Amino acid sequence: PDDAVLDDISHRRYNPLRGSWVLVSPHRTKRPWQGQQEAASKIELPQYDASCYLCPGNKRAQGDANPNYDSTFVFVNDYSAVKEQQADFKSPDQDGSLASRLLKAESTTGKCYVITFSPSHNITLADMPPSSILPVIETWTKIYTSHLDPHSPLCQSAKPTTLPPSSPAALNGNLVETPQQQYRYMQIFENKGQAMGCSNPHPHGQIWTTTSLPEEPHLEAQNLSTYHREQGGAHLLEDYAALESSKGERTVFENASFWAGCPWWGTWPFEIMVVAKRHKRALVDFSAREKEDLAETIGEVTRRYDNLFETSFPYSMGIHQAPLSGSAEEIETSHFHMHFYPPLLRSATVRKFLVGYEMMAEPQRDITPEQAAKRLRECGGELYRRRL
Amino acid sequence: PDDAVLDDISHRRYNPLRGSWVLVSPHRTKRPWQGQQEAASKIELPQYDASCYLCPGNKRAQGDANPNYDSTFVFVNDYSAVKEQQADFKSPDQDGSLASRLLKAESTTGKCYVITFSPSHNITLADMPPSSILPVIETWTKIYTSHLDPHSPLCQSAKPTTLPPSSPAALNGNLVETPQQQYRYMQIFENKGQAMGCSNPHPHGQIWTTTSLPEEPHLEAQNLSTYHREQGGAHLLEDYAALESSKGERTVFENASFWAGCPWWGTWPFEIMVVAKRHKRALVDFSAREKEDLAETIGEVTRRYDNLFETSFPYSMGIHQAPLSGSAEEIETSHFHMHFYPPLLRSATVRKFLVGYEMMAEPQRDITPEQAAKRLRECGGELYRRRL
Ligand SMILES: O=P(O)(O)O[C@H]1O[C@H](CO)[C@@H](O)[C@H](O)[C@H]1O
Ligand SMILES: O=P(O)(O)O[C@H]1O[C@H](CO)[C@@H](O)[C@H](O)[C@H]1O
Repeated sequence: PDDAVLDDISHRRYNPLRGSWVLVSPHRTKRPWQGQQEAASKIELPQYDASCYLCPGNKRAQGDANPNYDSTFVFVNDYSAVKEQQADFKSPDQDGSLASRLLKAESTTGKCYVITFSPSHNITLADMPPSSILPVIETWTKIYTSHLDPHSPLCQSAKPTTLPPSSPAALNGNLVETPQQQYRYMQIFENKGQAMGCSNPHPHGQIWTTTSLPEEPHLEAQNLSTYHREQGGAHLLEDYAALESSKGERTVFENASFWAGCPWWGTWPFEIMVVAKRHKRALVDFSAREKEDLAETIGEVTRRYDNLFETSFPYSMGIHQAPLSGSAEEIETSHFHMHFYPPLLRSATVRKFLVGYEMMAEPQRDITPEQAAKRLRECGGELYRRRL
Repeated sequence: PDDAVLDDISHRRYNPLRGSWVLVSPHRTKRPWQGQQEAASKIELPQYDASCYLCPGNKRAQGDANPNYDSTFVFVNDYSAVKEQQADFKSPDQDGSLASRLLKAESTTGKCYVITFSPSHNITLADMPPSSILPVIETWTKIYTSHLDPHSPLCQSAKPTTLPPSSPAALNGNLVETPQQQYRYMQIFENKGQAMGCSNPHPHGQIWTTTSLPEEPHLEAQNLSTYHREQGGAHLLEDYAALESSKGERTVFENASFWAGCPWWGTWPFEIMVVAKRHKRALVDFSAREKEDLAETIGEVTRRYDNLFETSFPYSMGIHQAPLSGSAEEIETSHFHMHFYPPLLRSATVRKFLVGYEMMAEPQRDITPEQAAKRLRECGGELYRRRL
C-alpha cells in the first residue's frame, strides 16, 4: 500500500476521536534498553485468600463483610474519590477579577463502586470463558441502567432487556442503592497489574459516577457530534470499524458485532480499541447476542495480551458510551467502544514510558499499530498458562 | 479564605493554560497503599563510570568518543526519535474517501540532541550550585538560538546576548551543526530517575526539534493568544505569577524574576511550575541577571524535591517557550515557563498512578496543590545528602 513507507519513517498520525496527533518513530525500536524493569507477575496465587478484601465472605476496610457471591459482586468503594454528600462550595462570582479568571473550581459529587469479576482470587478476564464474562457485562449494564436519567432516550432501550432502574434484585441483591441525585456520567474501567496502579490481584474493576462530564468523554463527544453533523448523519466509529474491517492490517479480532484492533492513532505500543460495528449508544442498546459477542471479544483481547509475552499482561481498560444524562445530540451520537491501554513494549519486564517528551510535547510511540496488530493476531488460541 | 472548604471536598479545578479540568479528591490521601513500590534510588555512584556513554572521554553507541568536556556537552542522540533525512511520504489526497478522513498521517523530520549537565556521573541538578546550573541555561539558549528562524522577531533579542546562530564556538565547539531546514519547534526536557524512564543516572537532558508544532505547546499557544486578545493585551502567565505571588499559599520559591509553585490546576502530587514574572517569550529574552535567577530557581526546586522524601526525586521537566518559527502572534504571546512532573506521592517508594480513571476520563489528584506547596516550602535549606 501507499503507506508502507510509514513502517520506516518518523511521522504523526491523527486521532479524529480526540482531535489530536501522536508521533510515531518506528526505527526507534532498535534502541537498547538499560532502564527500569518491571517485576514479572507472580502467577502462583491461591484461589481464595483470607486477607483479600474482595474474596467472598471476607471483611472489608470499613468492616462490612462480602456475601458468598458466585459471579460478580458490587459495593461502594471504601476509599471513594467522589462522594454523594459533602460540604457546599459555591464558585466565586465571575466578577472579572484575576482570581475569578485564573483560580476556577467547581464542586463534584458522585459515587465510586468496585465490581469483582469472579469469586476466584487467582484468575483474570483472560482465564474466563465468554460465559463467565457475560455476567460482568450484565452487571455493568444493570448499574448503568439504574443510574440513567429517567428522561434519557436510552430508557426506551433499557426496559425490555433489564430490570427496572434501581431494583435491588437487578444488582445481585447488594450494595447499589438508588443514587441521591441525577449524575452526568459513568466511567466503567479496570486497572490490571501492579504496573497500572492496581493493588489487589483479585479480578475487579471500578465504576465512578460524577455530576460532571469528564475531559476525555467530553472531547470524544464533541468530535463524534461534529462528524455526525458534517458527514450527513454518518457515525465516525461505525465508519471506522467498517474501514478497518475491510483493510484488515490493524485488526486483531472481529466477530459479527465488534471490531477489535490497534487503532491507526494508538499511543501505547499494544493499545487496542473494541468498537461496536453498528451504531450502538451504550450497553443498554445491545441484544443478548451482541452481549455474547462482546464477551467473546473481551476474552480474545485479554487472552492474546497474556499470550504475547507469556505473562499476566497489565493494562487499564475502560468503556466509553453515552452519558447518563445529556443533550439528545450527545446521547444519540455516542458510540459504544472500549480502550485497552497496556504499558508493556518489549517483554514482560520492559515497558514504554510516556514521560518527558510525551508529557511536555506530544505522545510518542515506537512500534507501529500495524506491527503490533500482526503480533496480536498471531498469538490467539489457548491461553499460554493452560498449554504449559 | 472562601476556598478553605476545597481542602476537604471533591472538586474540579480549571487549567486555563490547557483549557482542561482536573479532579481533586483531598480526602483520598487516607487510603492505605498495598500496591507497587518503587526501588529506592542508589546514591552510591562513582564520579566517573567507564561504562557510561555520557562521561567525558568515553565511547558512545555509534563509536564516537566524548571530548573531555568540563560543564555541558551536546551531541545528536544515537537513537533519535526524529531524523533530518528520511524517505518521502506524501499524505494521500483529501478526496473525501473514508480513508482520507480517518487514516491521516504526515511526515515529521527533526533532530534529537542529548545534553549533559555536568562531567560528574554521580550528581544531579539538585547537587549543583546556581553557578554550575548557569552553563546549562547558556547551552540551552545557544542551541535554541542556533535553530531560530532568521525572520523571527526573537532574532533581535538573540543578537546582543549570544553568539551568531550556528557558530560552532557557540556550542562548545562540538556536535551541533547547522540544521538542514527550518524547524517549527524545539522541546527541551529532562527525564530524571528510573521511574521516569531514564536509563542513565549521569545528569542529562534532551532536546527534540521537529517540523511540526506538538500538541501540548500548540494547545498552550492557543490559550495564551486567546487570553491576550480577550484581556486587552494582558499575558495569562504574567497575571498568574503576580496573583500567586500576592496570595502565597501555592508558592514554593520566588525571586525577582521567577515564581515557582504548585499550580492551582496541577495534576501530579508535587507538580511545580516555574513562571517568568515579566512577559518573556523565550530563553533569548533573558538578561544575564534573569538567567542567574533562573539557575537559582531550578536549584531551589530540585533541592526541595530531593529533601522532601530524602531521596533522589524522579521527575520529568520541560521548557515551554516561543516556537522556532511561527506567526508573529504566536511568538509574541508565548511566555517562558517550565513544568516539573514528579510521580512520587507519599514517600521515596510510593508513587501516584495516573491510570484507569485518569486515562479514560480525567486526571485526578489526592493531595491539594496548597498542601503540596506548604510541604515543599518547608523543606528548603541544604541538600539532605550534605547534612547527613
Ligand atoms: O530517550 P530515552 O531517554 O532513551 O527514553 C525516554 O525518554 C523518551 C522521551 O521522553 C521516551 O520516549 C522514552 O519512552 C523514555 O524511556
Ligand atoms: O482506586 P485504586 O485501585 O486504589 O487506585 C488506582 O486507580 C485509581 C483510578 O484510576 C487511581 O486514581 C490510583 O492512582 C490508582 O492507584
